[in-house]
Amino acid sequence: MKLIPTAHNKTLMNLLCSCVLFSAVAGANALSEQQQAQMEQLKATSLNSDLSYQLIESLTTEVGPRLMGSEGDKKAVQWAVNKMKALGFDKVWTEEVTGTLWHRGQAEAQIIAPYPQKLVAIALGGSVGTGEQGITAEIAHFASLDELKAAPDNSLAGKIAFISKRMDRHIDGHGYGETVGARVNGASIAAQKGASAIIIRSIGTDNNRIAHTGVMRYQDGIAKVPAAAVSNPDADMLVNQLKREQAVKLYLKLTPSTDEKVKARSANVIGEITGSEFPEQIVAIGAHLDSWDVGTGALDDGMGVGIVMAAAHHIKALANRPKRTVRVILFAAEEVGLLGAQQYMIDHKDEIANHVIGAEWDFGTGGIYQMTTGMGPQALSATEELGKVLAPLGVKFIKENNAKAQSDMGMLSAAGMPSVNFAPDGSRYFDYHHTENDTLDKIEPEGLKQATAVYTLFSYFAANSAIDFSK
Amino acid sequence: MKLIPTAHNKTLMNLLCSCVLFSAVAGANALSEQQQAQMEQLKATSLNSDLSYQLIESLTTEVGPRLMGSEGDKKAVQWAVNKMKALGFDKVWTEEVTGTLWHRGQAEAQIIAPYPQKLVAIALGGSVGTGEQGITAEIAHFASLDELKAAPDNSLAGKIAFISKRMDRHIDGHGYGETVGARVNGASIAAQKGASAIIIRSIGTDNNRIAHTGVMRYQDGIAKVPAAAVSNPDADMLVNQLKREQAVKLYLKLTPSTDEKVKARSANVIGEITGSEFPEQIVAIGAHLDSWDVGTGALDDGMGVGIVMAAAHHIKALANRPKRTVRVILFAAEEVGLLGAQQYMIDHKDEIANHVIGAEWDFGTGGIYQMTTGMGPQALSATEELGKVLAPLGVKFIKENNAKAQSDMGMLSAAGMPSVNFAPDGSRYFDYHHTENDTLDKIEPEGLKQATAVYTLFSYFAANSAIDFSK
Repeated sequence: MKLIPTAHNKTLMNLLCSCVLFSAVAGANALSEQQQAQMEQLKATSLNSDLSYQLIESLTTEVGPRLMGSEGDKKAVQWAVNKMKALGFDKVWTEEVTGTLWHRGQAEAQIIAPYPQKLVAIALGGSVGTGEQGITAEIAHFASLDELKAAPDNSLAGKIAFISKRMDRHIDGHGYGETVGARVNGASIAAQKGASAIIIRSIGTDNNRIAHTGVMRYQDGIAKVPAAAVSNPDADMLVNQLKREQAVKLYLKLTPSTDEKVKARSANVIGEITGSEFPEQIVAIGAHLDSWDVGTGALDDGMGVGIVMAAAHHIKALANRPKRTVRVILFAAEEVGLLGAQQYMIDHKDEIANHVIGAEWDFGTGGIYQMTTGMGPQALSATEELGKVLAPLGVKFIKENNAKAQSDMGMLSAAGMPSVNFAPDGSRYFDYHHTENDTLDKIEPEGLKQATAVYTLFSYFAANSAIDFSK
Repeated sequence: MKLIPTAHNKTLMNLLCSCVLFSAVAGANALSEQQQAQMEQLKATSLNSDLSYQLIESLTTEVGPRLMGSEGDKKAVQWAVNKMKALGFDKVWTEEVTGTLWHRGQAEAQIIAPYPQKLVAIALGGSVGTGEQGITAEIAHFASLDELKAAPDNSLAGKIAFISKRMDRHIDGHGYGETVGARVNGASIAAQKGASAIIIRSIGTDNNRIAHTGVMRYQDGIAKVPAAAVSNPDADMLVNQLKREQAVKLYLKLTPSTDEKVKARSANVIGEITGSEFPEQIVAIGAHLDSWDVGTGALDDGMGVGIVMAAAHHIKALANRPKRTVRVILFAAEEVGLLGAQQYMIDHKDEIANHVIGAEWDFGTGGIYQMTTGMGPQALSATEELGKVLAPLGVKFIKENNAKAQSDMGMLSAAGMPSVNFAPDGSRYFDYHHTENDTLDKIEPEGLKQATAVYTLFSYFAANSAIDFSK
């Protein structure tokens, strides 16, 4: 256990008692027989419940898109507070997160020559605009970000850079890491070479005429140029016109804007099932509440919101409450740069060590096939007991033990929090990620039930065993 | 054979010679051994050629969308003429087709209450507009067109009718016939009940946030009300909000328009490989050249255009030309109501009986799995020889013998033309049909090669055998 001395004697006593108990059962099971039976009961309950689906349905139907600072975001915060209260959480509160509000505006892209055709485009998150008049310029084509980096300085003067590298489909989504640099860093690199704008092939694995947005960043000291993504079929179209070996001219109009003067307000929403013996010890399960302004954020990250809220509720519904506290953290402003997680690290800087273990859900559409960990070696061994409970659900326990929590909670992992990473099937996740197509129908109910069961069982196990996950 | 007397003695002589030959080989094969060998050669050639794909790539890249009467349509006609000439067709010509030009304008749909959300919508083809101010009204929900028909008169006054029936996925696409009535006839039925507009769930099998357009018709004497489709995920959203049992209010703005005063001009494009012995006898293979104004018309019907043009080219490329003429007909204005086919029936009224057999391609994404026919009983028996050549390609010959040709050519079938209908895998066709998503990437190259081979072999067989398909 990660023991945090407190001034509260009763708690300290509990901790000491627990240590004695832990010593007494060294080498035995982490959970008592009664607890093991309760795990089986919880497995059946959570596998048969559609609570997580109902939560996602409610969030996507009644709130919808919820970009940090937007009206939808404010509604989402209120929605989460209300739902946590209705679900019987012991404590529910919000912690303010501030940032800037970016407005998407309009996007228009057309090939002007040699063969005029409309392109489906979307501004990247945080991009500056072209002005109402737009930009008309010749395309300079690069097969990858590396090719763009290799272009001579000033070679792109008066041109629009175009990166056509396609993201590959993998169960673990690793094609994202191989391509997303074009989205995040492409604009400044293109600007450094003199380009007046950049368009990229959408970072997505689908073939839909829907472009993928996502955050981009400008480097200090380099001119800010407009940045957009075109859908995969439109990127194909551009490549096919470029194959004709004539100059391809593009018209691009983007009208996003950022309210620099107005502080955008949002909040991390936190709810707890308070531990009966070690209330200050936190088993943290998280997701992010915000989404992009396109789609209804069903997969990203309504699914995570539904899973962790339902998991806590299933544990709360048991006759006896968990020994440690189960804390559900719904982070604000993940999409625009992990602002909620950063604020959480500030707000809870004196309490980070109390987070005895944590896991987030922010990836995947299907069921979980793998559990990896980042914890102490003794804890790894003791966690095999959880592994055995999850194995019949199709979850393989991989003991490389170098994992971090996903997304926001990766910050807590980096600060030393023992972590678990549940790997779901992400083969189709990037078909929908950051698009208008991220809607309720993309949720796979059976995979969702299994994932909810896994988070429920993990939370119960971590909150009721006496394992010190740091050791 | 469907013998058409001509004034040309040589041709008549050829016909007579052929009849003698036919009598001499009664009960024998329809094709000589040499011709059978040529069929095998043609099979290999067409299965190894990507000509049909290259034609579709060219049409979608260099022309793109081509709604009847639009600039794209004019370019498509010129494209087809140029390509047919380049492919070595013996005769290439156009026949004017006229109609009215409909402009799509903008579509905007939003749920106003109880939970404001944007909906992805598209005007149905031919719809009137709402005016710039749009319409705000309560939704009246019907699970099907039949439910709407059963609504009492005037019960929809001041409301927007919404039909939520979903199209089912089937290999033969028959879910389309079960649902498309809502699109074609829904507006006038809703107007008859007093509705101020209608929206329907897209007639499509996908779950993409892309709505499906398609033609609709107004009944005479009933007020014309605006008609739109929303994407499947948006229809789900509407249904989910309606489940909350509060009034659901919608804002709908559509700004389409029709140039009633200006005659829109297009053309059927026709090309022939002239028969060596019976040039007046026509083996007709067809597709339609126009498309909707969304997408690039790759599947609908660029695929058909590519298949029939390539088939004729493969036959032309043989050392000896076919005995009968192979005529490729690229119909104009299919989407807006078979205007090209209607014009063809007028222009060729004295020649219909010369069309000894015909087939069109206007459905499906994958390879052909089935051949059905509508021909005379003797011809059916003789056509088994073709069936045997196609069987190794996975094509089953179904002898129910009541088929018509697809789409435009269905008019020729109705006028007595013996017909063949090749059934391709259409399981995914209605994922893309009439949407922005109908783009080149949806073409399955292997299925396309097989389909091109089948049309090539059919055309060769029909043009070189002496079968009278009407008998």
